[in-house]
Amino acid sequence: MASESGKLWGGRFVGAVDPIMEKFNSSIAYDRHLWEVDVQGSKAYSRGLEKAGLLTKAEMDQILHGLDKVAEEWAQGTFKLSPNDEDIHTANERRLKELIGETAGKLHTGRSRNDQVVTDLRLWMRQNCSKLSALLWELIRTMVDRAEAERDVLFPGYTHLQRAQPIRWSHWILSGAIAGNPLGVDRELLQAELNFGAITLNSMDATSERDFVAEFLFWASLCMTHLSRMAEDLILYGTKEFSFVQLSDAYSTGSSLMPQKKNPDSLELIRSKAGRVFGRCAGLLMTLKGLPSTYNKDLQEDKEAVFEVSDTMSAVLQVATGVISTLQIHRENMARALSPDMLATDLAYYLVRKGMPFRQAHEASGKAVFMAETKGVALNQLSLKELQTISPLFSGDVSHVWDYGHSVEQYAALGGTARASVDWQIGQVRALLRAQQA
Amino acid sequence: MASESGKLWGGRFVGAVDPIMEKFNSSIAYDRHLWEVDVQGSKAYSRGLEKAGLLTKAEMDQILHGLDKVAEEWAQGTFKLSPNDEDIHTANERRLKELIGETAGKLHTGRSRNDQVVTDLRLWMRQNCSKLSALLWELIRTMVDRAEAERDVLFPGYTHLQRAQPIRWSHWILSGAIAGNPLGVDRELLQAELNFGAITLNSMDATSERDFVAEFLFWASLCMTHLSRMAEDLILYGTKEFSFVQLSDAYSTGSSLMPQKKNPDSLELIRSKAGRVFGRCAGLLMTLKGLPSTYNKDLQEDKEAVFEVSDTMSAVLQVATGVISTLQIHRENMARALSPDMLATDLAYYLVRKGMPFRQAHEASGKAVFMAETKGVALNQLSLKELQTISPLFSGDVSHVWDYGHSVEQYAALGGTARASVDWQIGQVRALLRAQQA
Amino acid sequence: MASESGKLWGGRFVGAVDPIMEKFNSSIAYDRHLWEVDVQGSKAYSRGLEKAGLLTKAEMDQILHGLDKVAEEWAQGTFKLSPNDEDIHTANERRLKELIGETAGKLHTGRSRNDQVVTDLRLWMRQNCSKLSALLWELIRTMVDRAEAERDVLFPGYTHLQRAQPIRWSHWILSGAIAGNPLGVDRELLQAELNFGAITLNSMDATSERDFVAEFLFWASLCMTHLSRMAEDLILYGTKEFSFVQLSDAYSTGSSLMPQKKNPDSLELIRSKAGRVFGRCAGLLMTLKGLPSTYNKDLQEDKEAVFEVSDTMSAVLQVATGVISTLQIHRENMARALSPDMLATDLAYYLVRKGMPFRQAHEASGKAVFMAETKGVALNQLSLKELQTISPLFSGDVSHVWDYGHSVEQYAALGGTARASVDWQIGQVRALLRAQQA
Amino acid sequence: MASESGKLWGGRFVGAVDPIMEKFNSSIAYDRHLWEVDVQGSKAYSRGLEKAGLLTKAEMDQILHGLDKVAEEWAQGTFKLSPNDEDIHTANERRLKELIGETAGKLHTGRSRNDQVVTDLRLWMRQNCSKLSALLWELIRTMVDRAEAERDVLFPGYTHLQRAQPIRWSHWILSGAIAGNPLGVDRELLQAELNFGAITLNSMDATSERDFVAEFLFWASLCMTHLSRMAEDLILYGTKEFSFVQLSDAYSTGSSLMPQKKNPDSLELIRSKAGRVFGRCAGLLMTLKGLPSTYNKDLQEDKEAVFEVSDTMSAVLQVATGVISTLQIHRENMARALSPDMLATDLAYYLVRKGMPFRQAHEASGKAVFMAETKGVALNQLSLKELQTISPLFSGDVSHVWDYGHSVEQYAALGGTARASVDWQIGQVRALLRAQQA
Repeated sequence: MASESGKLWGGRFVGAVDPIMEKFNSSIAYDRHLWEVDVQGSKAYSRGLEKAGLLTKAEMDQILHGLDKVAEEWAQGTFKLSPNDEDIHTANERRLKELIGETAGKLHTGRSRNDQVVTDLRLWMRQNCSKLSALLWELIRTMVDRAEAERDVLFPGYTHLQRAQPIRWSHWILSGAIAGNPLGVDRELLQAELNFGAITLNSMDATSERDFVAEFLFWASLCMTHLSRMAEDLILYGTKEFSFVQLSDAYSTGSSLMPQKKNPDSLELIRSKAGRVFGRCAGLLMTLKGLPSTYNKDLQEDKEAVFEVSDTMSAVLQVATGVISTLQIHRENMARALSPDMLATDLAYYLVRKGMPFRQAHEASGKAVFMAETKGVALNQLSLKELQTISPLFSGDVSHVWDYGHSVEQYAALGGTARASVDWQIGQVRALLRAQQA
Repeated sequence: MASESGKLWGGRFVGAVDPIMEKFNSSIAYDRHLWEVDVQGSKAYSRGLEKAGLLTKAEMDQILHGLDKVAEEWAQGTFKLSPNDEDIHTANERRLKELIGETAGKLHTGRSRNDQVVTDLRLWMRQNCSKLSALLWELIRTMVDRAEAERDVLFPGYTHLQRAQPIRWSHWILSGAIAGNPLGVDRELLQAELNFGAITLNSMDATSERDFVAEFLFWASLCMTHLSRMAEDLILYGTKEFSFVQLSDAYSTGSSLMPQKKNPDSLELIRSKAGRVFGRCAGLLMTLKGLPSTYNKDLQEDKEAVFEVSDTMSAVLQVATGVISTLQIHRENMARALSPDMLATDLAYYLVRKGMPFRQAHEASGKAVFMAETKGVALNQLSLKELQTISPLFSGDVSHVWDYGHSVEQYAALGGTARASVDWQIGQVRALLRAQQA
Repeated sequence: MASESGKLWGGRFVGAVDPIMEKFNSSIAYDRHLWEVDVQGSKAYSRGLEKAGLLTKAEMDQILHGLDKVAEEWAQGTFKLSPNDEDIHTANERRLKELIGETAGKLHTGRSRNDQVVTDLRLWMRQNCSKLSALLWELIRTMVDRAEAERDVLFPGYTHLQRAQPIRWSHWILSGAIAGNPLGVDRELLQAELNFGAITLNSMDATSERDFVAEFLFWASLCMTHLSRMAEDLILYGTKEFSFVQLSDAYSTGSSLMPQKKNPDSLELIRSKAGRVFGRCAGLLMTLKGLPSTYNKDLQEDKEAVFEVSDTMSAVLQVATGVISTLQIHRENMARALSPDMLATDLAYYLVRKGMPFRQAHEASGKAVFMAETKGVALNQLSLKELQTISPLFSGDVSHVWDYGHSVEQYAALGGTARASVDWQIGQVRALLRAQQA
Repeated sequence: MASESGKLWGGRFVGAVDPIMEKFNSSIAYDRHLWEVDVQGSKAYSRGLEKAGLLTKAEMDQILHGLDKVAEEWAQGTFKLSPNDEDIHTANERRLKELIGETAGKLHTGRSRNDQVVTDLRLWMRQNCSKLSALLWELIRTMVDRAEAERDVLFPGYTHLQRAQPIRWSHWILSGAIAGNPLGVDRELLQAELNFGAITLNSMDATSERDFVAEFLFWASLCMTHLSRMAEDLILYGTKEFSFVQLSDAYSTGSSLMPQKKNPDSLELIRSKAGRVFGRCAGLLMTLKGLPSTYNKDLQEDKEAVFEVSDTMSAVLQVATGVISTLQIHRENMARALSPDMLATDLAYYLVRKGMPFRQAHEASGKAVFMAETKGVALNQLSLKELQTISPLFSGDVSHVWDYGHSVEQYAALGGTARASVDWQIGQVRALLRAQQA
């Protein structure tokens, strides 16, 4: 065979480097997001080198000054990428050398690019998690404000999408606000991990471990799962059939075909993004699985995932805040959706309070529901006599059961739907918001 | 150091083999499902050995006879596993040797256990895909039967869960029947792959390739995605708010707390299984990712995934068939849910037929919708005069627009909701069912 | 409360539409990829309208001419997006109206945007699958060419990454070429689905069903799983420890820290992309799960997934082709890695041919391996006498066993590693390539 | 039509309840794991009822006594399930009623089954996370013990699977021990969540939120990802080509075909379980996505996922501990794998210490590597003269560079591979272990 050193069996390209490989390998298209933290990291590193005696004071000053110029060029949009800049780190180093000459070559003493990659990403995420946290804070605050203002609106609580018991509208809002909360916890976790005061225990692990990325992607997935459920509820509540809420025009879209329609696109998009965000989390874990220890280029997949998910979360949180703050509620429809059969549990509790074991009371109430259905009347229209054929414990005071306001006030345990309980929840969430702000 | 050959730093166990490792390694707990195909495969293989001159006719007969006995023991529940039977293949071979002596040792000439594992699983899946296919056939047949019987029921079609246009109830059923269809296509694919007439092209690939497993798991995931969407629709249609359908008691469950409730547990379980089934598919692909070629023990994960998904699909298809065949529909509620604004598109088409470009007609119809809303009347209660302020093209015949039956009959293109079109769809699906049966 | 029609509780924006919602909702940033197929679809649709009498011949000609102009503007990069163009369909229609006036409004008679979206994506995928198929074809061809040229190189076959038996290097290459093959099958499937001659059976299903997207993403995931395994093998074979192959510089990268290193970045990136691609598949299925039937905005997630995965596959296939075509193999190292213990199975077969049942022969060969290990010699250095202490069936002709070339020639069954068998595999794959080309 | 109340269109079953639905709906097959915590939870609840005046002291005592009997029956294996026991909660309540009569019916006053389900699972997980945490503790302790004992063994560090620099074997072990650590953090998180002293903020959220399950599954996925990487390293190190380590027989398996082989099945199974465990996590999130708020039967999927993952983790952690504690290392092979080119970075640092900027030094060292390759000698065999053609800064003391022991001692920064640094890491991990034990 003439030569084994070249390309053996056809193939597309000639020359030293396959341009498709170059593009495939290059990360500059997306890691330019990191310009600011890359400069920040390099400045800190050069100070470390000076302390260690590997840079003179003058060299350090020269480097710091040069890096400030690099940052200025990025900030003003005048930084020019060269075709050989395969990532943000080589781009910044190349430019630094153009600006200050050979001293630039001392900046990377004892630091591998893999160190730089992972440090930059950690720095970027620390900034970014703060921003996302602020957006989530705003969403939860909006929800609590609404919950406070609309405490007196009752509507049906559902389980299995079947009407269950009357609850306060605010109780529903707060269930969402609380569910949206993981960031609080997780941010502490991430900050702990990203706290550079703490020392990385092992240098091999330091360049190849991406738990902080995986945990961020999983936090986002879980948060999106909650938001997808809130979106699902609101889409249902906004149907003609439920008619409990109406999206503002700012968050709806008309139909290209049907003039009468107004579609809840904002909520559908929020719901859909749960899939996209989780897909990124799944992809990263699959990429990590079975990888040999220390750095492998596979790890380059982390950044696009983080950037895309961060952008998605930012948009989702803002749109969700807008949706909640402009949503109209239809109080009359909510009230109309309450029906006496939703008080069947209260009817059972009435008997419990008269001394009947709960399971028997549940059965007795079930008989009353069946009797009402058979007679074609509402549950509260059964006469006392009829009720007494089911249990002699029924007496005149059963009429108090048929009051929705009275019903919800029974659930005064912490976490319940009584006014006082809802107020307490509002207070708890507000305290949490204040704590995060501090 | 005293010895590097033993256990060096503490640890739980002493002795030759860690019992937890033994259990971890063993697959007999689940691969006993394969007893029948394992015997079947070994019988075929011994015939091959005889043909190749590696077994005499007498030896082959002895083996075949022994294998039949093994099968009989499994069928009658008298097969006794010994503690050393780590998988179905060693169990059957061990028992064969007890039954016929040393000749048993010749059965595995030139065949590795990895070959056996993959052949058995292929054989099992061929059988099993036929069973699942029959269950899917039954579900689709039930849907088509219903679609045929209930062709004259109209109800709202939805997009974005907003009422869009009147459609036939059968049109909805058929959309599900068609979506449930992938098995048809895929089964052919699997059968092609599992067709042992075809020759495995490469011996390395043969033991390590699990495409047939991955494709089965993906088929199941996609099929479950469709069924989860059908379940979601039926759960919604069964809420108090929609009240279009009612699940039979056989597929509902009462509440332990609220006597008046009947929950659509069957549909919720169907919907939930989409997650479980896809999780298995995701897990297998992650296990395969980055694995060195040929057999690695990691591949042992395939079987539990296949068995669990197969059981789940079997239950889901049967329950779905039961749900559809016993579902009650509330015709009056369906009719009541139709409203004149759902004919706004028809109103636009009316103008198109009078010569107006569609985009203008859409706008004109939108104005009519707005006018009706403003006046607080239904769209069909606008007077001819009022309509003529929007466009002079409106004339007396506009009254024909306000007929739901007439509306659906317009959609007579193949695939549409007109009676003839629905009949055609029924015919198409029936033809497909017949074709699969053959 | 002053007003429920506006924004109730704070929030960021004032005015009619939230600009973040607008951006969140808009798909033009990525669906502009569809400009060509959108024009193509609209041209076909306008011909349909003319046939149906809804457009005059003159109007149709005007529309066709206008659409050609739109296409020309896109092709030449002069198409100007307006801020209100939320997607490619509205952009093209808006521009058409500017070019030809009101007649443009007739183009969308009886066609919803949801129809357009799904038709465009199907058209785009049909084109794109052809391109990917050609790239895959090229990769497989390159592999077969190499396999043909290097048939006489032997090296160790591995299972569990343990050296198993000598095989031909070409046998390994072909195991990958065959595994890379799913596109062949799947393309037929996709083409069948995308074959617009076939009629969409049900209009509801037509706009909401995304099986063709899910199947494409799954094909890509499965294909990447195969490629990740091939990459893993080559990464291992390229380590100092194995030293079987060497990547060309065109597909390697140096270290920023360690001057002596050459890293297999191309292969690591290929391996990593399995995660990314599968993540998209997982994300789409999660988005689809539990969605109500017909169109919901959630479905907008399909396009970015398809575009990204298509780009990734295109790069991966080309880089893989380049890697394979320029890879150097180290024949001497491959030869050196063969050792007599890899012939232990052959030793067992030797006894089988002398009449011993395979299980006994396996045990006897195992004893020989143990004896050699104990004596600290290679398996082929045991004397005949020593072997005869294990079994009297050993005689002088056992020396023929210790020939690697002879060993591989035994595996002459179809799919095996004998020269003839490998030639047959080459022929089979070439036939497949020719068939796809036709 | 005769009747719409029955089964309309064929179908398999007749009668009130479809037996397949019953089985599909029933969870007793797996939630019997919860018997102990169910009794525990009910005992606590009955005390609460007594405090609230809903049970008399006598009734409470009767219930507590009855529940103790129920628990005793489970513990002794004498509890008999009845066919109507659809889950553990109904089974226990049914049995309690048999044992103590009607008073049993009072136990569930004001408590829904959904509450019970979620409380039981939280209790079970609290117990179980403690067990898993202890197993993980044991694994990490074993690793640290080894790391301490084998501090003086050097072997190659790899990045991209290319030999990079000499490191201590203990440095590798510790990188794994640290990576295995997430449970520490996460357990705190879970305990915080599962701390029943804290009040559940919202009753709607309480029954439908499954974050504690999702976080557990994700913790397990991430932990398995780390273990899959450790397994991959050890599989590689155990190949003939690397020959750094040897698995004990207790954790290996022979080949059915090839007498000479010993396969690392234990490690391959550990690696594979990353897929299975993550699949469960993916499945749960998909099940949760888009679910309406509060309880839906879909949530029943949580338990099997938790039980299976918990069992898998328990086995994996124990097998991994066994593998590590019995692993033999081949010190000579490790030493032999060190080669002078791995000191190229040290050579560059030599020049840096003489005043050359790092980037230039890196280039100079690269030239030396190239010169040695060209001449076909080892890097340390270049003469001083030859080196001086590259840079005049080279002098006699360059010979100190060629000492592997000296090389590793340079990396004395915290986290590095110097003896002192490794000792410090051992101390840190031990401190962590002690902290967890307390």
